[in-house]
Amino acid sequence: MMGVECKSLQIIQTVRELESVLNRDFRMGKTVGFVPTMGFLHEGHLRLIETAKEHDDIVVMSIFVNPAQFGPGEDFESYPRDLENDIMKAEKAGVDILFIPTAQEMYPSDSGIRILPGPQADVLCGSKRPGHFDGVLKVVLKLFNIVDPDRSYFGMKDAQQLALIETFVRDFNLRTQIVRVSTVREEDGLARSSRNVNLNASERLEAPSIYRALLIGAENFDAQKSPQDIEREVVELINSNTSGEIDYVTLLSYPSLTAITKDSKEVILACAVKFTNTRLIDNIIMSTKDGFHVPNDDEQ
Amino acid sequence: MMGVECKSLQIIQTVRELESVLNRDFRMGKTVGFVPTMGFLHEGHLRLIETAKEHDDIVVMSIFVNPAQFGPGEDFESYPRDLENDIMKAEKAGVDILFIPTAQEMYPSDSGIRILPGPQADVLCGSKRPGHFDGVLKVVLKLFNIVDPDRSYFGMKDAQQLALIETFVRDFNLRTQIVRVSTVREEDGLARSSRNVNLNASERLEAPSIYRALLIGAENFDAQKSPQDIEREVVELINSNTSGEIDYVTLLSYPSLTAITKDSKEVILACAVKFTNTRLIDNIIMSTKDGFHVPNDDEQ
Repeated sequence: MMGVECKSLQIIQTVRELESVLNRDFRMGKTVGFVPTMGFLHEGHLRLIETAKEHDDIVVMSIFVNPAQFGPGEDFESYPRDLENDIMKAEKAGVDILFIPTAQEMYPSDSGIRILPGPQADVLCGSKRPGHFDGVLKVVLKLFNIVDPDRSYFGMKDAQQLALIETFVRDFNLRTQIVRVSTVREEDGLARSSRNVNLNASERLEAPSIYRALLIGAENFDAQKSPQDIEREVVELINSNTSGEIDYVTLLSYPSLTAITKDSKEVILACAVKFTNTRLIDNIIMSTKDGFHVPNDDEQ
Repeated sequence: MMGVECKSLQIIQTVRELESVLNRDFRMGKTVGFVPTMGFLHEGHLRLIETAKEHDDIVVMSIFVNPAQFGPGEDFESYPRDLENDIMKAEKAGVDILFIPTAQEMYPSDSGIRILPGPQADVLCGSKRPGHFDGVLKVVLKLFNIVDPDRSYFGMKDAQQLALIETFVRDFNLRTQIVRVSTVREEDGLARSSRNVNLNASERLEAPSIYRALLIGAENFDAQKSPQDIEREVVELINSNTSGEIDYVTLLSYPSLTAITKDSKEVILACAVKFTNTRLIDNIIMSTKDGFHVPNDDEQ
């Protein structure tokens, strides 16, 4: 009988095998934590694994560059892949089961049934990537059904993705708990991203100004400045301290991603900035409880 | 500790209570069979329960008139309800758990995330009910997540609904097995339906001709007549034997609901006929294996 005794990394490539290894009846009360990724693992992913290991008995990571979430003209083909390195990193970080399906294994057939996000997908990065979040919700629903995790771990850097997934789980009673994991940053505050290597030397020096601008925005939010004034000041700070071109700087309720009201329990201040060869995103999510904010990176 | 020891009917109205009663860790290896309904139970529903009891240890039935699957101008308000009678019938039939949520309990919030069916929803009854199957897929996904059934039971009378749900389960790896249950018929062959009471006396006498026409269509399919000829003959038979107005008579691959090809493994011959105060649907699903068909009502 297949069980879930995991002494070392187990690599699984088919849905059928993963489902049988993770069968609820064989779990013996052990909890499963799930970390879905597109591979090319960096510190941010390792933080997800670390957090999963704190809460769950068995940690499952998936590596799947999901074609359904790339639009025409986007970088599906050139998306960075380094499976050998990823496997070593996953094993070292203590992943128990690594699920690496092919696209054929994940999408053997397509009837055209789609999951369409609501207005949450029309703001921030979603406004520039039509169809992107359809593909995200599709793969997430499939992976949740295959793995059946007790908890699933997502980074707060992809805040819009996290907002949509939290909402999908809530509105469709999906059987997993979503755990938010803080953005991992360089010592100078720049959010870790595989895209940072595409910054040139002077851009790399400027880039931490993005997060510094967001922190000032957060202070201004605490000081009860208006959303317009907060956004304007962040825009000015980024413009005067970097050579990048601002895509957006936006303050919204979180995770609804609608305009802020006095009932907003959480808010997000998010931005995207284009540099010569790459585009960076960053954000701060703040609780409005008791009139104070709690930045997502409060342990920094 | 709440368990799933079910000596008599247990009525549950909240998602939270149902989830805790059906918690996988408390099931002790017992299987759960699920029968989703909109209530006003008739013989067809009782057959679903009976089949579930043959396969599963615990039978859960839901009664929920799902507003999301009624379009504007459809009969959500006037849809027949008789909860007291339903509870008696469910208890007598041996249902273990009856889930009766309110609309507020099922849809406490709406972010606008929708599940859109593909072209399967554009034929047969779906062509006249835009948005209907969005609402069906939404409630089905929610109920599957809440109940987490090993098997779920659906009647073959609602063949398009069944086709869509089978496809949704396949393409999104939903964690339940779909069991098809044959249409229950009156002695004269008329498919059981709560709508049959709306036929007037002469229509009631004519109505069995619908199924007889479908059976002749099935014979013609076996005799390898063309889809066009098969459909035409069924139309002629219904027209000459009833006063009803034909909405459609259609032969398609099943469950894809696309045009028949030589690779079709199953086909459906389906029709809808309007009478004075009601509209009846019926169908025959045939396997094409070994060149023979197997009507879905072969035990009749």
